[in-house]
Amino acid sequence: MQMLRGLSVIGFETGAEQQEKLFAFSTILGKPLPEAFSVASKEEINQALLLAEAAFPVFSALPGTRRAEFLEAIAENIAALGDDLIQRAHLESGLPLPRLSGERDRTVNQLKLFAAVLREGSWVEAVIDTALPDRQPLPRADLRKMLVPLGPVAVFAASNFPFAFSTAGGDTAAALASGCPVILKAHSSHLGTNELIAGAIQKAAIATGMPEGVFSALNGEGAALGQQLARHASIKAIGFTGSYRAGMSLFRTASNDRATPIPVYAEMSSINPVMLLPETLKQNGTAIAKQLAGSITLGVGQFCTNPGLILLLKDETSQQFITALTAALEAVPPATMLNKGICAAYYQAKKKTGSIAGVKILIEKPDEGDAFKGSAALLQVDAADFIKQPELQEEIFGPASLVILCDDHSAMEAALASLHGQLTGSLYGTDGDLQEFAPAMALLSSKVGRLIYNNVPTGVEVCHAMVHGGPFPATTDGRSTSVGADAIKRFVRPVCLQDCPATLLPAALQDSNPLNIMRKLNGQYTRESPAK
Amino acid sequence: MQMLRGLSVIGFETGAEQQEKLFAFSTILGKPLPEAFSVASKEEINQALLLAEAAFPVFSALPGTRRAEFLEAIAENIAALGDDLIQRAHLESGLPLPRLSGERDRTVNQLKLFAAVLREGSWVEAVIDTALPDRQPLPRADLRKMLVPLGPVAVFAASNFPFAFSTAGGDTAAALASGCPVILKAHSSHLGTNELIAGAIQKAAIATGMPEGVFSALNGEGAALGQQLARHASIKAIGFTGSYRAGMSLFRTASNDRATPIPVYAEMSSINPVMLLPETLKQNGTAIAKQLAGSITLGVGQFCTNPGLILLLKDETSQQFITALTAALEAVPPATMLNKGICAAYYQAKKKTGSIAGVKILIEKPDEGDAFKGSAALLQVDAADFIKQPELQEEIFGPASLVILCDDHSAMEAALASLHGQLTGSLYGTDGDLQEFAPAMALLSSKVGRLIYNNVPTGVEVCHAMVHGGPFPATTDGRSTSVGADAIKRFVRPVCLQDCPATLLPAALQDSNPLNIMRKLNGQYTRESPAK
Repeated sequence: MQMLRGLSVIGFETGAEQQEKLFAFSTILGKPLPEAFSVASKEEINQALLLAEAAFPVFSALPGTRRAEFLEAIAENIAALGDDLIQRAHLESGLPLPRLSGERDRTVNQLKLFAAVLREGSWVEAVIDTALPDRQPLPRADLRKMLVPLGPVAVFAASNFPFAFSTAGGDTAAALASGCPVILKAHSSHLGTNELIAGAIQKAAIATGMPEGVFSALNGEGAALGQQLARHASIKAIGFTGSYRAGMSLFRTASNDRATPIPVYAEMSSINPVMLLPETLKQNGTAIAKQLAGSITLGVGQFCTNPGLILLLKDETSQQFITALTAALEAVPPATMLNKGICAAYYQAKKKTGSIAGVKILIEKPDEGDAFKGSAALLQVDAADFIKQPELQEEIFGPASLVILCDDHSAMEAALASLHGQLTGSLYGTDGDLQEFAPAMALLSSKVGRLIYNNVPTGVEVCHAMVHGGPFPATTDGRSTSVGADAIKRFVRPVCLQDCPATLLPAALQDSNPLNIMRKLNGQYTRESPAK
Repeated sequence: MQMLRGLSVIGFETGAEQQEKLFAFSTILGKPLPEAFSVASKEEINQALLLAEAAFPVFSALPGTRRAEFLEAIAENIAALGDDLIQRAHLESGLPLPRLSGERDRTVNQLKLFAAVLREGSWVEAVIDTALPDRQPLPRADLRKMLVPLGPVAVFAASNFPFAFSTAGGDTAAALASGCPVILKAHSSHLGTNELIAGAIQKAAIATGMPEGVFSALNGEGAALGQQLARHASIKAIGFTGSYRAGMSLFRTASNDRATPIPVYAEMSSINPVMLLPETLKQNGTAIAKQLAGSITLGVGQFCTNPGLILLLKDETSQQFITALTAALEAVPPATMLNKGICAAYYQAKKKTGSIAGVKILIEKPDEGDAFKGSAALLQVDAADFIKQPELQEEIFGPASLVILCDDHSAMEAALASLHGQLTGSLYGTDGDLQEFAPAMALLSSKVGRLIYNNVPTGVEVCHAMVHGGPFPATTDGRSTSVGADAIKRFVRPVCLQDCPATLLPAALQDSNPLNIMRKLNGQYTRESPAK
């Protein structure tokens, strides 16, 4: 296995060994892992920021194809880490090996998708309005605009995706693709995994001739390092996946405690309501119960798209469905959770929710917190009680779900209307169901970033049409997605050039359209050059 | 002249007469205008919010062509107000008649531009990734996304554009185009103008069959009414043009004092630096001086794009230019300002800046504040003093500019590096100049939303490629523009539909592409339907 040095990555160097150390804890082994990781010193953090700031003008001015080469090299280097990477991530995250190799592949493909977006080139949204020198009463200047990167981005690795939402995950890939240097805060749960991937990025940056500072990865205590990054003038945007508390703390800092507020893309908290409509339940209740039980317990429920809320009409069919779901969930063995904190918080949240007025506990399984294992939970409450008690909307991060029994259509609509913003909402219904419940469906749609028909919310495709985002508090910025090609749009702003001499125009805005990208020319989409 | 009733517009009704009244003050007449305007009561404000909330699902679901008809009807109704409107705006704003009829035409054209954007339809950014049922290891679902409106928007009318940035201005037009109802806070300087335009919108809404609540216009004291709107749960976004203080107050409220933070598009403060490079100054100094003097005093300097900063190398040519600029500015007669507060603040800010260490006053004209007239001002400071004193970057709203003398290239670069975010930056240079000053040019570009070559910043074209926005504090959100077709993008969020039944797909996402819009299909731009 590749030797871990336990040091931060600062540009093209590694940080020094420091007195203060962190250790990753393995929930599989039930003990800390032996490798010590030095906490980045203030000087090292500043050095990473200085390097990022210096790298920005060079990196952002590179042709998209050069940045594509960089992303592809990262992808290759990660793939080349092979089993060492998967083994270390397994020890650090408790996640099973097949899941991890799948997630690794997804991460590699995600980097390649952004490389493809760069090679295609149209993502800069080039818009050209040509001059109208003879227009009355006033001539029109030549106006051309495109998206340009914001500057260095701080990315916070997530606990639950050691690859896909961490060191070389979606935020890093999108920010680098856009032309923004990245300073990555490693997640304290998987410091070794981070070191391996950070090394792969560093090696790719050197090999493809990127400016030093385009990427650094820092070890440190979450809140302290996070605040230091979020407050720093060089940081121009933040990408984060994690708890509501940590996300909002970054959001508050970025909005209030800086001379210049910056955008924060924090994906925080979602309970992903699933509406099960009567006709489809009658036809497929048992199959849906099995599918839903699989989704609730997938990855021990540690997905941001975990279905935490199930809305049903109160009738006999629903009762049968609940019985089937309970049985399916009971059959799933408890499994190792990501880290100590998450496991403890899971049992605590489950207990808290179970004690709320009107909540009925449908599955009573022993607490396996001492073994860091999560067992499935199912709770139930009437819509009226749900609406009255907003704390029932707090995410239970783990394999738990809450059934909401609705007396009738209007109770279901009221429950939906009371919902906070969500990443996803799912609808199970026949054509007849969907017609009958159209108002409820519209309500659900207004609360979510992704509306899923007749399927579970887990499984987030990395593609062009994905929206992995949603109204607050699912994210701090419902106008964005953190997964898919358009995640790149989070780290840019438009700049308009007026009467810019042809020799100074960036390639995307040149008359001859050398990149052959789709542009808006005098209001029409085309790849053609402006008429002379 | 059309009778003014002095009442707020609440959906399809007018508000009641209230005890509390506001009066518009005419800087032309030097006294308050006789018409009394009732301050909207709490109940009326709530009624407007309730109506907007109720209108949203209906309004947002209308085909784009229906909303286009609404915008076109507003444009027609405003044009039909004819001279009554121009006369009232003249009395209330002190702006000359030709400027006002030009601004009215621009406002009408702006509404038509958004109608054209809706009729073309591609603005919803439809993206389709078709299902891959046979993909290994997992099939891909059918995923389709598009932009959908956020919900009711609060728009704050600006003092300096009674038409183009007020009741039916860019924010209102963009929000209505996107499908968001608008609640407009009238500007206390032009309450009669607001009433006429609000009536035109109300009439258009009724005539084109829009749902009641799609638009309301409220009279009230700025801070009180503004805070009430910004805090209300029904408001989902804010459009604002005005002072830094008022804009930041809305931003803080929207970020911190609500259960759900909302986006604020506040255009606040910009001094629009102009870099004058040596070779071009030698060749055209006198002409540039005249052009710049015209821009500084245009509209008595009351433009957000007013050139408030002029950067020059310290040499003989520059000295000659400054002499010419001083003479040109001295020749401009003082003119009536928008309102009492703006005029008083202008003289105060001028005095404050003049008293800062190192600042030299180049034009000493008498204070005509008693007559509400602003006289041109020119001040000068060395780059070193400018950099040391950030208060020199505070906008002097009026016909004033500050010359920054730079000892050499590096002093100019240091001054540019110290600049806050700006709406615009202008560069006057020959090809040789631009080559020589490339690093300075890159610095300027990094600070602005629009970079202008060899021209003044005043004059903001309403078109597709415009960016009227810029890094903080020019705006609270440098990722957006408040002028031009893409202003519509501020009031939307993406929603992804997964495996949505064909019968339930919105037109923009249907296979047959009935709107014939440009879409991204499996990563490629096309108007074609997906292959069967």
